[in-house]
Amino acid sequence: MIQQKEIVLSEHSRGFHLITDEILSQIDLPKAGILNLFIKHTSASLTINENFDSTVLDDFETVFNLLVPEDMPYYTHTVEGSDDMPAHIKSSLTDSSINIPITDGKLNLGEWQGIYLCEFRNRARSRKLVVTIYS
Amino acid sequence: MIQQKEIVLSEHSRGFHLITDEILSQIDLPKAGILNLFIKHTSASLTINENFDSTVLDDFETVFNLLVPEDMPYYTHTVEGSDDMPAHIKSSLTDSSINIPITDGKLNLGEWQGIYLCEFRNRARSRKLVVTIYS
Amino acid sequence: MIQQKEIVLSEHSRGFHLITDEILSQIDLPKAGILNLFIKHTSASLTINENFDSTVLDDFETVFNLLVPEDMPYYTHTVEGSDDMPAHIKSSLTDSSINIPITDGKLNLGEWQGIYLCEFRNRARSRKLVVTIYS
Repeated sequence: MIQQKEIVLSEHSRGFHLITDEILSQIDLPKAGILNLFIKHTSASLTINENFDSTVLDDFETVFNLLVPEDMPYYTHTVEGSDDMPAHIKSSLTDSSINIPITDGKLNLGEWQGIYLCEFRNRARSRKLVVTIYS
Repeated sequence: MIQQKEIVLSEHSRGFHLITDEILSQIDLPKAGILNLFIKHTSASLTINENFDSTVLDDFETVFNLLVPEDMPYYTHTVEGSDDMPAHIKSSLTDSSINIPITDGKLNLGEWQGIYLCEFRNRARSRKLVVTIYS
Repeated sequence: MIQQKEIVLSEHSRGFHLITDEILSQIDLPKAGILNLFIKHTSASLTINENFDSTVLDDFETVFNLLVPEDMPYYTHTVEGSDDMPAHIKSSLTDSSINIPITDGKLNLGEWQGIYLCEFRNRARSRKLVVTIYS
C-alpha cells in the first residue's frame, strides 16, 4: 500500500537543522514499511545524522563550506549569487531523498539518529517535501 | 505492485548529463508510487540537480575534479588509469540509486530538478540501469 | 509485501569493508523487489562500490581522511574524540541507507559492485542494520 502527501517545512536559516519532530507531526505511520522523504529543491537537501549535540550541526556547516567554498574563480554558474552553485554541489553530496524503515508503528532510527534539513541558501524559504509511505 | 526492467543509456562523455527525458521515454509510470533507478556501475553514478542551466553541469565537473583529484601519489589502485580510482570515490559521493515519487502519473520532481548521469570515466560507454517501480 | 528484520554485523576495524556475503547469509530474497539496508548509526555508513581489488578499499580510507581531516581547529564537537566529528560528516557524504533491486531471486548488482560498510571510528564495534525487503 502506498500513501503519499506533500508537506511544507517551516522556514529554516542557512545551516543544518533537525526536523524529525516537524515531519512526524505531519504524518501517520503504519505498523511496518518504509518512509521515503523527497525534497523538491536543488539547493537544500536531506541527510540523517546525530540528533543530540547542536555543535554537530554547526560543524556540518563549517565543513561543507570548506569542501565547497564560495566565490571561487572557477565557477561559471554565478547569476543567482555566490551561495547558489555551491548549494547545488552540497545538495548532491548529501541526499535528495532518504528512506527510513518503519517498525512497530515508529521510525526505526538508531538512538542517536535524526533527520536533517540541509539549507544551503542564505535567504531562507520554506521547502517542500513529498512523503511516500509504503507498507 | 513491482515492475522492473533494465535499460541501457546512450553513451555520454565524461561529465554530468541530464537524462530525465531519456529515462522517461523508456518507461511507463503508474498513477502513484516510487521510481527507483539503480546504476550497475562503480565509475558512473546518478544524482538529482538543477535542470535548466548547462553551466551547472560544467561546474559539477570542475568541483568534483577538485574534490577528488587525479594522479595523486597516495593512490594505490592505479592499474585502470588515472581517472579510475577518483571515479570510484566520486560515485560514492553521489548515488548508485535514486528514488523519485510518482504522483498523478508523473515524476513528482520540483520545477528545477532533473536526473543526472554522472560519467566519471574518460572513455564513454553505455551504462545499464535497473528501473524498479512500485505502486 | 514487506519483510523486515534487524541484523548485527560482525565487528570491522576502521576502514571500508565488503559485506555483501555477510548480509546475504542472513536474509532470504524474493523473486523480484527491492532490498533496503538501513544502518542505525551516525559514524558508520553504507555505500556500493568496486568488489574486486582491495586497494580500492584502502584508497577510500585515504581519500576520505583527506576530504574530512581530523584534529582541525575549526571543530567544536570534540568531546567524543578526534575521529568522531569527521565520522559524522563522512557518514553523510556516503549513505545511511541503500536500495538494491532484486531480480530472479538475486541482488541485481553490476558485475563489479559490492556492498561496503564504511567504519569511521577507531574503536570497532558491531553495527546494526535494518533490512527491509519489498516484493
